[in-house]
Amino acid sequence: MTNHWLLPEGIDEVLPPQAARLEQLRRRLLDLYASWGYELIMPPFIEYLESLLTGTGNDLDLLTFKLTDQLTGRTMGVRADMTPQAARIDAHRLQRTTPVRLCYLGTVLRTRPDGFAGSRSPLQVGAELFGHAGVESDLEIVALMLATLDATGVGGVHVDLGHVGIYRGLLRDAKLDAATTDLLFDALQRKASADINALLAQADITVNARDPLAALADLNGGVECLDAAAIVLRDAAPDVRQALDDLRRIAAGLQARRPRVPLHFDLAELRGYHYHTGPVFAAFVPGHGQAIAQGGRYDDIGRVFGLGRPATGFSADLKTLMAHAAPEPLAARAAIFAPWGADGPLQAQVQALRAAGECVICALPGQAGGAHEMGCERELRKVGTEWTVVGVSVNKSYGICRPIFLGGVFAPAGGWFREAHIGGGVWPAPTLHDKQGR
Amino acid sequence: MTNHWLLPEGIDEVLPPQAARLEQLRRRLLDLYASWGYELIMPPFIEYLESLLTGTGNDLDLLTFKLTDQLTGRTMGVRADMTPQAARIDAHRLQRTTPVRLCYLGTVLRTRPDGFAGSRSPLQVGAELFGHAGVESDLEIVALMLATLDATGVGGVHVDLGHVGIYRGLLRDAKLDAATTDLLFDALQRKASADINALLAQADITVNARDPLAALADLNGGVECLDAAAIVLRDAAPDVRQALDDLRRIAAGLQARRPRVPLHFDLAELRGYHYHTGPVFAAFVPGHGQAIAQGGRYDDIGRVFGLGRPATGFSADLKTLMAHAAPEPLAARAAIFAPWGADGPLQAQVQALRAAGECVICALPGQAGGAHEMGCERELRKVGTEWTVVGVSVNKSYGICRPIFLGGVFAPAGGWFREAHIGGGVWPAPTLHDKQGR
Repeated sequence: MTNHWLLPEGIDEVLPPQAARLEQLRRRLLDLYASWGYELIMPPFIEYLESLLTGTGNDLDLLTFKLTDQLTGRTMGVRADMTPQAARIDAHRLQRTTPVRLCYLGTVLRTRPDGFAGSRSPLQVGAELFGHAGVESDLEIVALMLATLDATGVGGVHVDLGHVGIYRGLLRDAKLDAATTDLLFDALQRKASADINALLAQADITVNARDPLAALADLNGGVECLDAAAIVLRDAAPDVRQALDDLRRIAAGLQARRPRVPLHFDLAELRGYHYHTGPVFAAFVPGHGQAIAQGGRYDDIGRVFGLGRPATGFSADLKTLMAHAAPEPLAARAAIFAPWGADGPLQAQVQALRAAGECVICALPGQAGGAHEMGCERELRKVGTEWTVVGVSVNKSYGICRPIFLGGVFAPAGGWFREAHIGGGVWPAPTLHDKQGR
Repeated sequence: MTNHWLLPEGIDEVLPPQAARLEQLRRRLLDLYASWGYELIMPPFIEYLESLLTGTGNDLDLLTFKLTDQLTGRTMGVRADMTPQAARIDAHRLQRTTPVRLCYLGTVLRTRPDGFAGSRSPLQVGAELFGHAGVESDLEIVALMLATLDATGVGGVHVDLGHVGIYRGLLRDAKLDAATTDLLFDALQRKASADINALLAQADITVNARDPLAALADLNGGVECLDAAAIVLRDAAPDVRQALDDLRRIAAGLQARRPRVPLHFDLAELRGYHYHTGPVFAAFVPGHGQAIAQGGRYDDIGRVFGLGRPATGFSADLKTLMAHAAPEPLAARAAIFAPWGADGPLQAQVQALRAAGECVICALPGQAGGAHEMGCERELRKVGTEWTVVGVSVNKSYGICRPIFLGGVFAPAGGWFREAHIGGGVWPAPTLHDKQGR
């Protein structure tokens, strides 16, 4: 027999009770974004390829699964990143002149895993701010990224900041040939100073253009590296100096809002699918080599859809965030077992309990297992003439269940606060004096 | 310029404010399922093809988009139905002996639209009950299907009931050849009595086997058709008569629970991808030719995954349900516009309002549009030394905004109850005496 149940590498599924926890995080984040004014969009899973890849560069193309549309013969792609979809929606569908704040949460697929043992089906969550070119919108996005990490319980975060405009401006003024440009980009990503110096020594380039490029790989560290950069870039073009100043303003804003979050700067950081145009940022946690959330400015990506707009945003994989969240107390199912029956008052009671947010599981005639095996610590029983919720106590030695009458109080067979693993709500339970089958 | 923004036929996206409404429905349904004891699962978007299509028949194969796994060269499929995935998870991942209740909600993709102008990317929502063979679990599933329609505000529902065991049993005893079987199946789906009679007249078949098959196409209508069927099937095999009896018990259970929902019976109905094995059911609304929710019993589909189990379930497209829901009052954004600034008390007030469930949108320096253009009917202003929420009034003739001081009460510039279109909560607003720029 073939292994019909093996999932492809990097493709995962989420089972109970983790799926309920993920749903809870989903709601918490979408509520957070709503409270900041970010409107939810649900972009399509597949689009024509040219629409999906517009302005995003080659990296995303290689990561995108291709499909043939049987209706038209055209090539479609499965989304590998929802950011360009948000840009298309802002530019083509909404067409507002005011700033537009959008958020999204959904699965994206990638042909190759993201790093070592990485996922090919991240649950991408993110927020994008269109229509404002100032550093304030970058600052809002970084603050929202940090609020996202707070809401998911990810701790020990530090933020990396960079600005691709510095490298781009220096490169433009250096007028290097394409081959040298590619090699330099590669060497910078590796921070290989020897390679960079060798490349620039051979290049046809002025000293004024060469020195700042050569220095970039070393311009990283704490906020003091911005002062060092100011000296290195003192003769650079105005837009390069402006970029450095923008970075400083974002850093100052973050320090004012989130003084305890360590900032790290890296002026050689060129994150993203070649589509960033300004400040870039990423959040890291100890023990995880890759960023757990990242983003940056990508102005004008929507031009091909009819409206070039300033844009900045961040995204993350919710499953990665959940894996790095502080462990929450083990979820226990708070459920009530009800007998099967068409009895009117019983049905009414079941309905009332469910409407009140309780989980009521109906016994199926002849089913395997009873209240305890079905994860119920209470059950609905007829006491006198009334259907009443009573506790179930388990006699472990005999494996039988005995109800405990709780006088109509809905109480679980445990005296602690527990979190219902379905339904998402926190369900406080009163203390109970008797538990283990006495 | 090519039309970079055109979506493929049958592929859609959901924009604000509809996306927020869909999210609200999503939560309502998952909470409903949780209250019935159905645990959420999140099956993968893609799987190896043989895993995805096991036991589901040819129809689903044709509807499934195929992808090549670049890591292994194997063929993967994009899920076109989540039911078989739920069966795999029950059989292989959970492996419980007790009844298992699972629910799911997610996008599925199909190579061809579902009917005229149909979708190729339904948002499938459904629930499955594994491990119980009795009609009580079918009844629970039909009741949950109806509760789903109630929760989404779909009215005027009637339910179609059938049982593929009747046709299957009669066919087995008739011992027809494969070609006649296929033609008969086709004729029955069309209820083409003349074709059916002609086929059966030519077939090598006993009168006892022929007459019930010939009668099937006419056995549809109200509950009285079950009495007619009992006469037609009086000499049929015991499992056929049991199937009819099961149908009658499900009908009686539904009439007791939901007396106002009209029931319709059709013993020639053979819904599903050939994987149903027992009762089948569907919900219809006036003016929509296709079922808006459907399901049935599909025992033993999990056997290939290691555990054959009784199984019954239903599913629907949440976007179709939303389209048929009673129109809700137009959602208005209840938002507060706040000035940009690092001012500590301002930041604290913004944070407190958001934590209280309010939507606070920060002005971005130099942005296009003010409070009104950003959809805010209130704003945060410094009154004396305190940051206070005040109403915004719009002078339409001049297009300017004027704040109205509300003495610290959070009130919108309208005196009705409105539903926030983001965040999902209902936000009751106190009456306000002054509105239009006076």
